[in-house]
Amino acid sequence: IEEQNNQELLSHLGDMHHADIAEILDQLTLDEATYVIKLLDSEKTAEILMEIDQDDRERVLENLTPKEIADEIEEMDTDDATDIISNLSVELKDEVFKNLKDREHAQHIVELMRYDEDSAGGLMAKELIKVNENWSVTGCMEEMRAQAENVTRVHAIYVVDNKGKLKGRLSLKDLITAPSNANIADVYIENVDYVDVHTSAEEVARVMQKYDLEAIPVVDEIGRLVGRITVDDIIDFIRDEADKDYQMAAGISEDVDADDSIWELTRARLPWLVLALFGGFIAVTVAGQFESAMVNYGFLFFFMPLIAAMAGNVGVQSSAIIVQSIAKGTLTGSVWKRLLKEVGLNVLNGIILSIILFLGAHFILGRDYIVAFTVSTALISVIIIASLIGTFVPIMLNRYKIDPALATGPFITTSNDIFGLLIFFTIAKYMLGF
Amino acid sequence: IEEQNNQELLSHLGDMHHADIAEILDQLTLDEATYVIKLLDSEKTAEILMEIDQDDRERVLENLTPKEIADEIEEMDTDDATDIISNLSVELKDEVFKNLKDREHAQHIVELMRYDEDSAGGLMAKELIKVNENWSVTGCMEEMRAQAENVTRVHAIYVVDNKGKLKGRLSLKDLITAPSNANIADVYIENVDYVDVHTSAEEVARVMQKYDLEAIPVVDEIGRLVGRITVDDIIDFIRDEADKDYQMAAGISEDVDADDSIWELTRARLPWLVLALFGGFIAVTVAGQFESAMVNYGFLFFFMPLIAAMAGNVGVQSSAIIVQSIAKGTLTGSVWKRLLKEVGLNVLNGIILSIILFLGAHFILGRDYIVAFTVSTALISVIIIASLIGTFVPIMLNRYKIDPALATGPFITTSNDIFGLLIFFTIAKYMLGF
Repeated sequence: IEEQNNQELLSHLGDMHHADIAEILDQLTLDEATYVIKLLDSEKTAEILMEIDQDDRERVLENLTPKEIADEIEEMDTDDATDIISNLSVELKDEVFKNLKDREHAQHIVELMRYDEDSAGGLMAKELIKVNENWSVTGCMEEMRAQAENVTRVHAIYVVDNKGKLKGRLSLKDLITAPSNANIADVYIENVDYVDVHTSAEEVARVMQKYDLEAIPVVDEIGRLVGRITVDDIIDFIRDEADKDYQMAAGISEDVDADDSIWELTRARLPWLVLALFGGFIAVTVAGQFESAMVNYGFLFFFMPLIAAMAGNVGVQSSAIIVQSIAKGTLTGSVWKRLLKEVGLNVLNGIILSIILFLGAHFILGRDYIVAFTVSTALISVIIIASLIGTFVPIMLNRYKIDPALATGPFITTSNDIFGLLIFFTIAKYMLGF
Repeated sequence: IEEQNNQELLSHLGDMHHADIAEILDQLTLDEATYVIKLLDSEKTAEILMEIDQDDRERVLENLTPKEIADEIEEMDTDDATDIISNLSVELKDEVFKNLKDREHAQHIVELMRYDEDSAGGLMAKELIKVNENWSVTGCMEEMRAQAENVTRVHAIYVVDNKGKLKGRLSLKDLITAPSNANIADVYIENVDYVDVHTSAEEVARVMQKYDLEAIPVVDEIGRLVGRITVDDIIDFIRDEADKDYQMAAGISEDVDADDSIWELTRARLPWLVLALFGGFIAVTVAGQFESAMVNYGFLFFFMPLIAAMAGNVGVQSSAIIVQSIAKGTLTGSVWKRLLKEVGLNVLNGIILSIILFLGAHFILGRDYIVAFTVSTALISVIIIASLIGTFVPIMLNRYKIDPALATGPFITTSNDIFGLLIFFTIAKYMLGF
């Protein structure tokens, strides 16, 4: 199809949904994708651009002229347009702004660029339907028809006073079922959830999920309605956060996908492996300190991977639960109570596992009582310490505003390995004497 | 407040949002929570019940009479009502059904109970607004006002033919902006995304996200409109899936929260630790096979935790990427190509890490060239094998319809530990000869 057969290509793509076209473009080469984007009209390509992978998007945009980019921007909602423009180089930004014909649209974008990307201001769009509380229902319907032109989907109609302050909301349903001679002031619902432009994205997601909202209005410092955030932005945010935490737990930084280049994947993964390797060096040194055990109790070294693995697993279990609770905002109560509970839980698990280890070491591996007992005692100590570290570290990271998910990755596994081995050999040294 | 001061409590809770009340109830004891639920009217409590934690909900319901449960059910949307009833015991189910006054509601619930929980049929609600293509816009408005009573939020109006088959959709916006003398057939949009009752929940989530839908109609085997799924159900589903994958990676089965009881948390975590412990036993045995190395090359054992940790980390990195791609539905192309890429990537990482290890072992730990070279060679081999296992296992699990996230947990870490040690000692044995 790629043989410059424009007519056929156009009629083919014309009927397709923009998300489907985006999927096809992801399979094409950069030149082919750019060619298709240039061919289609900007109304359609603006939506396609928002669907394709961010890296691909940046590359396609590099091949477009400032004029062409401006055409795309004109067709986008203000929030998407702001995302695109923010990622352009400084000179390109200026060029694109010069080419924007819709001055109001341009002004909105400039306003949105002021806000932090992870705040309500950075997530919101300027497109919304607002009505004045003093209007009549009939007048309101007229006005809304005009405003609705700019808004892709109507979630709610926001009611403001003469100063632009948010007073309440109206659903289309309410408007349809209201008597046509009523005033807006008589029918609107005063109780409306809203967020401030400076509210963090996490908090916006939490509020919208808690109250099952499909859109939430955003107000400025003095309560004036300045934008709205829709649920699809929040879904993307939730998904990205979950992905980030998951990848962090697996020792992968940055947001990468199986389809990314080897170079991108390496950059995201190698640093964690280097960290783990240095942790491994320390573990080697720790083990080396107890070399004297090798003469009489050499088989103690056989247990090292077991001890390290148990310490790692317990630590990750403990921190994963805490990280999730922090992400969901359900972590309440004192740190000490939480630590106590985690210790209680792991004493329980530790006793069961130590008994299994004792029986296994004595009856299956044929070690004598004292050795089996030593290894089991070390195991339960390691489990308790690992769970304490696993609980404490994410809580502390969160307190100092560092992403607690960091604690579930190779970082905690590696430190638990080292502490685990140190505890193991120290206990063995005192109990067996070497 | 809990001192039976009903009047004050009622006026206090009366103004609050149901999600806020649910948050308070989560902090109370079971008896207190049940007391509050019984006090408030069923319209409010039905919503509260849907917000509180599932375990708490089941316990509260046990304290209610079938009549009281039926009152709650009457107030719920069909999808929520079905979830609640499905979790009741068989006898209680019958009792509750006998107490349902709204026969249509009851019939809808029975219909929904037929579907698998993780299919579109299991997610959908019967509440929706549908209009016949032969109606006029004015008649349609009338009809809609009546239907809208039952529907909490109107996302779209679905258009059906005389046989009930889905023909298209209409947004409220279209309806408002349409000339009032038009017929529905003239104004509706034919192009409508829909899913089948048997479509899997994952697929529904994928489609709704891809096309940014807020609601999607569900049709039966012969194309008749039978329900709709709204975006908030999908958000819950996405969140649950991400949580499940994350917990699975951390070695926690079942969906638990930091606030669950010690017993619940133990049940979710202990089995994985037992698994890891048995893996540890095998590792001990593997190391024991190479006991002869202890005489001349005892320090090789010091490297065991390092090798095991690297094998575990690399394996988890590889499988996490695959698991995420599977979850997002972006895993395309052949398995062999994917394995080749992963190997390429890990050869690159492996070379860099082996060089660091070689330099570290020789210059810092002071081992001679041949030993440092042996350990480095073992490391790169272990990394490549671990990445192959990490890539291959989730793809295979998925092919056999087992949750691929299983592969990111202690399961893969443990097997990689064992394989890693086996490879390490085998290579060392051949290179150093012991």
